[in-house]
Amino acid sequence: MTKKQGIKVVTIGGGSSYTPELVEGFIKRYEQVPVRELWLVDIEAGHQKLEIVGALARRMVKKAGVDLTIYTTLDRKKALQGADFVTTQLRVGLLDARIIDERIPLQHGIIGQETNGAGGLFKALRTIPVLLDIAKDIVTYCPNAWLINFTNPAGLVTEALLRYSAHQKVIGVCNVPYNMHQSIASMLGVEKDSVSIDFAGLNHLVFGTHVYVDGEDVTDAVLELLSDPEMALSMKNIAPLPWGRTFLKALGLVPCPYHRYYYQTKKILEEELRAFHSGHTRAEVVKTLETELFQLYESEDLHVKPPQLEQRGGAYYSDVACNVIASIVNDTRDVQVLNVRNNGSIRELPEDAVVEVNCIVGKHGPTPLSMGALPIHVHGLLQQIKSYEQVAAKAAVTGSYEQALLAMAIHPLVPDEELAETVLKEMLAAHKAYLPQFFSETK
Amino acid sequence: MTKKQGIKVVTIGGGSSYTPELVEGFIKRYEQVPVRELWLVDIEAGHQKLEIVGALARRMVKKAGVDLTIYTTLDRKKALQGADFVTTQLRVGLLDARIIDERIPLQHGIIGQETNGAGGLFKALRTIPVLLDIAKDIVTYCPNAWLINFTNPAGLVTEALLRYSAHQKVIGVCNVPYNMHQSIASMLGVEKDSVSIDFAGLNHLVFGTHVYVDGEDVTDAVLELLSDPEMALSMKNIAPLPWGRTFLKALGLVPCPYHRYYYQTKKILEEELRAFHSGHTRAEVVKTLETELFQLYESEDLHVKPPQLEQRGGAYYSDVACNVIASIVNDTRDVQVLNVRNNGSIRELPEDAVVEVNCIVGKHGPTPLSMGALPIHVHGLLQQIKSYEQVAAKAAVTGSYEQALLAMAIHPLVPDEELAETVLKEMLAAHKAYLPQFFSETK
Amino acid sequence: MTKKQGIKVVTIGGGSSYTPELVEGFIKRYEQVPVRELWLVDIEAGHQKLEIVGALARRMVKKAGVDLTIYTTLDRKKALQGADFVTTQLRVGLLDARIIDERIPLQHGIIGQETNGAGGLFKALRTIPVLLDIAKDIVTYCPNAWLINFTNPAGLVTEALLRYSAHQKVIGVCNVPYNMHQSIASMLGVEKDSVSIDFAGLNHLVFGTHVYVDGEDVTDAVLELLSDPEMALSMKNIAPLPWGRTFLKALGLVPCPYHRYYYQTKKILEEELRAFHSGHTRAEVVKTLETELFQLYESEDLHVKPPQLEQRGGAYYSDVACNVIASIVNDTRDVQVLNVRNNGSIRELPEDAVVEVNCIVGKHGPTPLSMGALPIHVHGLLQQIKSYEQVAAKAAVTGSYEQALLAMAIHPLVPDEELAETVLKEMLAAHKAYLPQFFSETK
Amino acid sequence: MTKKQGIKVVTIGGGSSYTPELVEGFIKRYEQVPVRELWLVDIEAGHQKLEIVGALARRMVKKAGVDLTIYTTLDRKKALQGADFVTTQLRVGLLDARIIDERIPLQHGIIGQETNGAGGLFKALRTIPVLLDIAKDIVTYCPNAWLINFTNPAGLVTEALLRYSAHQKVIGVCNVPYNMHQSIASMLGVEKDSVSIDFAGLNHLVFGTHVYVDGEDVTDAVLELLSDPEMALSMKNIAPLPWGRTFLKALGLVPCPYHRYYYQTKKILEEELRAFHSGHTRAEVVKTLETELFQLYESEDLHVKPPQLEQRGGAYYSDVACNVIASIVNDTRDVQVLNVRNNGSIRELPEDAVVEVNCIVGKHGPTPLSMGALPIHVHGLLQQIKSYEQVAAKAAVTGSYEQALLAMAIHPLVPDEELAETVLKEMLAAHKAYLPQFFSETK
Repeated sequence: MTKKQGIKVVTIGGGSSYTPELVEGFIKRYEQVPVRELWLVDIEAGHQKLEIVGALARRMVKKAGVDLTIYTTLDRKKALQGADFVTTQLRVGLLDARIIDERIPLQHGIIGQETNGAGGLFKALRTIPVLLDIAKDIVTYCPNAWLINFTNPAGLVTEALLRYSAHQKVIGVCNVPYNMHQSIASMLGVEKDSVSIDFAGLNHLVFGTHVYVDGEDVTDAVLELLSDPEMALSMKNIAPLPWGRTFLKALGLVPCPYHRYYYQTKKILEEELRAFHSGHTRAEVVKTLETELFQLYESEDLHVKPPQLEQRGGAYYSDVACNVIASIVNDTRDVQVLNVRNNGSIRELPEDAVVEVNCIVGKHGPTPLSMGALPIHVHGLLQQIKSYEQVAAKAAVTGSYEQALLAMAIHPLVPDEELAETVLKEMLAAHKAYLPQFFSETK
Repeated sequence: MTKKQGIKVVTIGGGSSYTPELVEGFIKRYEQVPVRELWLVDIEAGHQKLEIVGALARRMVKKAGVDLTIYTTLDRKKALQGADFVTTQLRVGLLDARIIDERIPLQHGIIGQETNGAGGLFKALRTIPVLLDIAKDIVTYCPNAWLINFTNPAGLVTEALLRYSAHQKVIGVCNVPYNMHQSIASMLGVEKDSVSIDFAGLNHLVFGTHVYVDGEDVTDAVLELLSDPEMALSMKNIAPLPWGRTFLKALGLVPCPYHRYYYQTKKILEEELRAFHSGHTRAEVVKTLETELFQLYESEDLHVKPPQLEQRGGAYYSDVACNVIASIVNDTRDVQVLNVRNNGSIRELPEDAVVEVNCIVGKHGPTPLSMGALPIHVHGLLQQIKSYEQVAAKAAVTGSYEQALLAMAIHPLVPDEELAETVLKEMLAAHKAYLPQFFSETK
Repeated sequence: MTKKQGIKVVTIGGGSSYTPELVEGFIKRYEQVPVRELWLVDIEAGHQKLEIVGALARRMVKKAGVDLTIYTTLDRKKALQGADFVTTQLRVGLLDARIIDERIPLQHGIIGQETNGAGGLFKALRTIPVLLDIAKDIVTYCPNAWLINFTNPAGLVTEALLRYSAHQKVIGVCNVPYNMHQSIASMLGVEKDSVSIDFAGLNHLVFGTHVYVDGEDVTDAVLELLSDPEMALSMKNIAPLPWGRTFLKALGLVPCPYHRYYYQTKKILEEELRAFHSGHTRAEVVKTLETELFQLYESEDLHVKPPQLEQRGGAYYSDVACNVIASIVNDTRDVQVLNVRNNGSIRELPEDAVVEVNCIVGKHGPTPLSMGALPIHVHGLLQQIKSYEQVAAKAAVTGSYEQALLAMAIHPLVPDEELAETVLKEMLAAHKAYLPQFFSETK
Repeated sequence: MTKKQGIKVVTIGGGSSYTPELVEGFIKRYEQVPVRELWLVDIEAGHQKLEIVGALARRMVKKAGVDLTIYTTLDRKKALQGADFVTTQLRVGLLDARIIDERIPLQHGIIGQETNGAGGLFKALRTIPVLLDIAKDIVTYCPNAWLINFTNPAGLVTEALLRYSAHQKVIGVCNVPYNMHQSIASMLGVEKDSVSIDFAGLNHLVFGTHVYVDGEDVTDAVLELLSDPEMALSMKNIAPLPWGRTFLKALGLVPCPYHRYYYQTKKILEEELRAFHSGHTRAEVVKTLETELFQLYESEDLHVKPPQLEQRGGAYYSDVACNVIASIVNDTRDVQVLNVRNNGSIRELPEDAVVEVNCIVGKHGPTPLSMGALPIHVHGLLQQIKSYEQVAAKAAVTGSYEQALLAMAIHPLVPDEELAETVLKEMLAAHKAYLPQFFSETK
């Protein structure tokens, strides 16, 4: 890979509705990161979407006038040959699987969500074997490529990849810190560039430990603002519940939107049950949104990423990914928030665990910063979710019913081991087609 | 202290209904541990009970024919002079406070229990300042004495003592491992002495990591038996809910009865709500029991510990305490399960945290054994409760509303920070008389 | 293994001059540990010695009138069948190799010693592959047997076994703590039983961190006595150099005799060079002593262990080993000082490193005690020797010249990497016959 | 401090011969870092030198035409008022003290050196109290200032400051990594900017763990080159002894020049003894050099830093310091190698130890990168020097003879505790005037 020869990127799950954003990202950064080939790969079931997205991408490239060729293919191995970067944004079982992930737990009165709790566990169980398979192909066809994983649950999937794959050039990316950064800057009424934030935690459980404006620590002011219901940081896919003022002050850290699942479990559950009963869980909403998006994408007149895409929770995901790629290509050594092996960055978590922290990113990849001690009151939750993630990764790889039960039962959003087993059985049955490792005869 | 001169023991909270068991313990062990003076100390509010218990103790001693003088006094400082051991078994606010600890949380739909969750937090907030005060007197009047704390939540109280007191000769004791040992032996149909168990965890959250019979590892067999509903290990004060067979197998460790609060939260809560609505929470049941016990104790014809005492959850507590005293006096260096500073015994918990583990006990006190690695799937829960305990101890010592809210909100049995604040405020108001640190004017 | 059936012990290196002590040990403890079969195993080169020792052992047993059969054999595999305990006390290359280990380094002006520095490294390189081979046979012929290793350097050899062998029931024993215990008691003029010592460190680098007499801490008094030149703790094989009074006080720990190699390097080296030039290095002295011992052993009139054996540095080694065996057989759970996997016992050393610490020993083997924090001023030396041991073990197993050089060069008694290479080359050549792993053609 | 208002820098030890370099640094970077006031502070004994240097500095500034006022003063407190940065480059006892530091140890046959071994210890004992005093003044007069310490032994002094001072905005700087970076680039024949190096270790004991050229790992090639005697990395103040080729390969890390003291002790000692006997120890050479420098500085015709200054070992020190200042002022967040609190950056060293590692530097100071695991074979040496440093810092602060002896005796370059005490006593006597803490009457 050199800048002069141009970069080859392969996107697995290329038929995703997020692809136009990625394409936009490459177009915008073409000067610094001359991507010459973008291979969009999908599976047979996604063939039609792939072609719609591919055609739109070609129109976008043409309009922008950059020298970037878009390939669409179902042949993953062929696409991977000599790639510099592989990005993954797939969804095993599509949105229908996500609907199951959300509705079965809710039916039993517990939180059903894409990346947390019982739903997140099943998304991981379906996804991890596919990602490991991709990593195996990368070892064969493009061993020097970086695998940039956006697939959720991104932290857990990255944990599984770094633990069980021979390919170790893996980076997990998430738009949550990016969006927090943006929201906090706008809340403070300052330029994004003047704000810097120390992030430490796990994916979807990351804290802003310090917020600086022009080098001054303004964390307390941010916490004060955040407890204002009007200001509550929020994501598209999470109800913008306000935080208790005294609680935030005592916490002393900026929570991410997903922390509500753990610190406001009761209220979130009530919201979700309301959506469940009205048939409007997030997955169901998204499914409708996606259908609309693809209708837009088909229009021959569309030559840019449509603004409607930003309604999705994953907005800016690709911005984050493009930034990583740019820093590697240009050996920038700037700070970004990524999912990487801990290596002592968060002292309270195991050295080999995947964490989400500030890293510097250069040609040989990301190096985490040493974040120093986190306050005692968050050690427990972080360790609990990390315990869960490591057990879940093991379950996904081995297809062990026992490990899957354990993962489910120790998750803080699943309040009973007997109930855990009931939900587990039901979800295993519902997702059987995508969980061969649990149903193989030779086991 | 030498065996020849005889031992002086001071029991703070001497008017407790448990005292006859302690007296029985000293009588039984008189040959090895010649306790010559037992000072029962209580406060004005407990004066009458103290005298009833003191009189019974004197009758017991007389009947046994041992040279042991029983003193009853309200003057703690006088009692402490030159003591060898101080035991603490007090209950700040008596059972009425416990009723509040149980009922207020249940009123808000969350678990209300003596040592766990919101109730346990408030018991700690009331108790810790009193214990620190006792420890201060010990430094003045008997600095070489060992403080043997039975007062619940015993682990958290011991954590607070070792963290905030100048007196460091402190040991926390609990009857849970003792009872587990006994129950497992009887379940296996073997002598208690042939069973040995590696215990590691926190107080009321301790695991049997290995069970041996005559040196053979029988842990798997024990787990198999434990999932038999007939066999379910149980304590008087916890519903004997069965454990899931696959769950126990996957867990790979013997849980203690209190683990049900965390692994069977939903079912325990349902049970408790039933008791709540019928006006028979555990505290209410115990209060009736205690009234009956004191009626028995008053009888001049009673010269022994009455068997009804064993109905209490704390049965055998004093056996455990007497064993520790015997091992210190005789430099026995045998293995006992105690609450001590971790010192690397459980590698996954902070070095300075108080843990409940196998120790050897000799004249210079307890030394924990190195328990080796615990499985990843329990790190989270242990760390979470330890985080809570350290925040709770800080709240108790400082009287900080913020820290108290934090302790409440991060406890896994309190599922919402807003609810946490509601319950906190209500309980602070209800217990105001016993929480001066939160209401002092100079704060 | 049950006490009733009787115990089978196999001693590899049975022709050693130490064997009579081991036999005496089994005879003395026959009531508690009924060893019925003792198999003395040696190699062809030691055949004659084996028969001399075997005959003496038979006379000892006969005289004692116990039911213990002595077998002598060169067939290791046959001997191992169904063994309960395997003890190893072999010396690859015999005393001639030790003479080389001592003389080559001294020739280059650096310390040459049996278990430390360049000499100790080569003893390890010769010994470890043989021990791993024995461990392999144990897996095949008696997988439940405990391997009790006395072979020096005992800590490093145990490190290698626990790191590279499939057989994990391995305990390293050494007489240094035993002798320190005895010497300290006699120095204090009290019974050995009334003294207890907390030992923590590495083999031949173990500290007494606290000395108690009847539970009272007398460490300071012991340090004071130890700086009296008349009292200097000493071993047969180390010059009894006095310790500086202020140094010992500042150290705050009781050093073992071998600590002189590190804290008195200069003086020890001068002593050794004197012995070197006069042709009386320790190995040369021992060789003469051993010839005399075997002359004694041959006498048909000898029916007991001759007192001359106690002139050897290894005296009481077998006492230590017999104690371990007795505690395992009888599930005694008493405290002994052994070389075991750290497991957090010494927090400053890696969890998986072999350390020498107080352990309790019962039927399922030894469990180390948590020794708490060691003072900062000894972390460095301990870590340095442990680093060396782990590199040395790797060199022994792989036969890597680079790793051997690294082990030599980082050892604190080898003050130059170039010199390290010179000595390494010379010693590799001199010991070629016993270091096949470094000279195999296929490497 | 804002760029607009201009920066105020105070240099303690302003009369140092290094000052012209610092001034040159500020002139070169005036655009990015507008230093408007530079206060050169010295003590009475250095008055004359201060004025010579001050006059030269003023000529340099005038010639460069920048708006920077040079102040010279003996009144430290006045100078510190409102400072943004304080740099320290003092030498307690001047070069005469250094001559003693070098000659007394050599007289006893052990290494005598400015920052290592017995000499380094005494430099630390003299320097630390003075630095703590300066830090105290900073707390009073300019609490927001960063203290940039160049005073040797820079790592140990920074350790003492961060451990014992209330002022925590302290950064230790050293030119060794800077020079290594430069030398390696020139050895490889590439631009300095295309080389990046991961540095991890302690001051004067730092390793290059990976060397990258344009993101490609070329560490092995660098090690190969380094074992070429022609190429041997070297510093002005260390003999350019070649490294063994196999040793370097086995080490797998790029040593710094000072590593020779530990890996080539014998040869370095021989060199030093030669210099000692000829009266040309490094301190003596430097003293002559310095006299010559001041003669140059006095010339009214000199308006720039004279090239002869680069003969000194400390060349580029001020470049390093200016870079730190520039990154803080401009919130650059670029990577620099600094002495900071570990915070998990080097997992094998204590969290609160000062280490020398890659950091990113922005407005709120330096944050270390997580360097990942270092190979086992360097843990020992690093821990040993860190143990020594922490004991030495304690000795310097407390004036404890025992701690000073301990620091001396555990240092790997002092091979005997008795000798340690002899040298200690002699050096204490020789440096008495500068070690009031060891001679105060009230002790």
